[in-house]
Amino acid sequence: MIAIDWGTSSLRGYLLGPDGQVRDHRRGADGILACQGRFNAVLEALITGWDGPVLLSGMIGSRNGWVEQAYLPCPADTAALAQAMQRYDDLLPGRTLWFVPGVSVGERDGTPDVMRGEETQLVGLLAALGDGEHIACLPGTHSKWARLAHGQLTDFATVMTGELYALLRQHSILGKLMQDDGGSLDEGAFLQGVTRSAEPGGLSHHLFGARTLGLFERLPAQALPSYLSGLLIGHELRDHRGDHRAVHLVGSPALAQRYALALQHLGVTSQLHPEDLAAAGLFALAQQRGLA
Amino acid sequence: MIAIDWGTSSLRGYLLGPDGQVRDHRRGADGILACQGRFNAVLEALITGWDGPVLLSGMIGSRNGWVEQAYLPCPADTAALAQAMQRYDDLLPGRTLWFVPGVSVGERDGTPDVMRGEETQLVGLLAALGDGEHIACLPGTHSKWARLAHGQLTDFATVMTGELYALLRQHSILGKLMQDDGGSLDEGAFLQGVTRSAEPGGLSHHLFGARTLGLFERLPAQALPSYLSGLLIGHELRDHRGDHRAVHLVGSPALAQRYALALQHLGVTSQLHPEDLAAAGLFALAQQRGLA
Repeated sequence: MIAIDWGTSSLRGYLLGPDGQVRDHRRGADGILACQGRFNAVLEALITGWDGPVLLSGMIGSRNGWVEQAYLPCPADTAALAQAMQRYDDLLPGRTLWFVPGVSVGERDGTPDVMRGEETQLVGLLAALGDGEHIACLPGTHSKWARLAHGQLTDFATVMTGELYALLRQHSILGKLMQDDGGSLDEGAFLQGVTRSAEPGGLSHHLFGARTLGLFERLPAQALPSYLSGLLIGHELRDHRGDHRAVHLVGSPALAQRYALALQHLGVTSQLHPEDLAAAGLFALAQQRGLA
Repeated sequence: MIAIDWGTSSLRGYLLGPDGQVRDHRRGADGILACQGRFNAVLEALITGWDGPVLLSGMIGSRNGWVEQAYLPCPADTAALAQAMQRYDDLLPGRTLWFVPGVSVGERDGTPDVMRGEETQLVGLLAALGDGEHIACLPGTHSKWARLAHGQLTDFATVMTGELYALLRQHSILGKLMQDDGGSLDEGAFLQGVTRSAEPGGLSHHLFGARTLGLFERLPAQALPSYLSGLLIGHELRDHRGDHRAVHLVGSPALAQRYALALQHLGVTSQLHPEDLAAAGLFALAQQRGLA
């Protein structure tokens, strides 16, 4: 089978054997934003020479994607997600495509939350972790915090940490005093931000400290981005890890490493999982549906 | 005497009588950002025909202003601020200029915070309120929360509410679903945001609800800006009003009215004070220094 993880700005394809092992993998240059209107041509080129049913997850199933998919409400498990997959025989000549739905919570009452793509990574994580109660964090532009219990995704929350960081660096008064750090982390300043996040005053007050610490030269300009990152990640962790003593992290190694460092600082252990859990999740969904 | 309130994007001049009453007032078009390098010409034109010593407060005393002034550390009172004013006889021919310092807190230990301009409004507020313990909120791009006790400014905190609101509307994913509300308030959506701010999850999670409530058409696009405003102001109030049962609001009527509405929703009373407290503050400082 063929597993496709197609996000806003990335495209990854995997050819999987009957045992779920990755036989081949390819990266496309085009996330969904970059290939509006030519999804078929981009996919056809990516999977040339590969055989089997094609399962797709990620923002490709969103309103701005190829074919909009519904949201399955929480609690959701692998069987329900597999059952809710939609089959399309007319999108690509000679190919059968299956789209994974998104997942929602609080759609009718409460404040709604949604994910699209992460549910498939979580299916992969569930396959690895088995039963029991777990909390998983998928850091990113919009981080997701997911509660897993007895093979189900029971609840989740989105936190805008990555987007806020980018906004504040690029467009706010805080960015004016900052020097580019080339993405490298100043661990001391980062952990100072994590510590600060526990003090009274709230995020929107703490953020201003990323200016005044620079004004009074208490932190050098190239350490301020790390301090800001520590403030935002610190608040995210304090608001979402609950009383769990271990957190499963799924994401790019550089970002997941920051979260692991902050969690360690708070006395919480973490386990890093590979980013390509989506392939494992798509394989589990295919198996469940009898496609692999 | 002449009182000048010169901020980043505004300039206001007042001619005050010996009783502190406003005899004349003029608005300049130029905040400090718009008249770099020609502060003398702009001021001379503004106060033509007025006599007396000139007292200046606001960002005109900042690094990006005319002459950078120091910060006086908290606790600070009217006498200390008056004593710390700096006199300049050589900036404008035939005129004596006095610059009010800024105020800081936590400059050496803790996380520093600063104000410049608001301290003068607070001197005006202190003159109106007299002794006792009070909490004042000066809403704006960077809101200030000030604790006043026995005629002193004892502590304060900056909250980036206004800047975050503008950033999120103009540059974030939240702005994409929003329709311009022309600055008018949807009270229901605003108070829904204020209520939401008390729930678990933190600001950075609550913000994402301003997208999902739109996605699921639970709020109309033109109500989303009010909801976002309610979230941000709600968090600010919960983090900073402490256990005070009454808050003194100093700011533009439209913005102060939003804060009053949110406070009322939380069962807290508020008192609105005029924005031009700066003139009263500068008069009190002049009196204290024997200039009026």
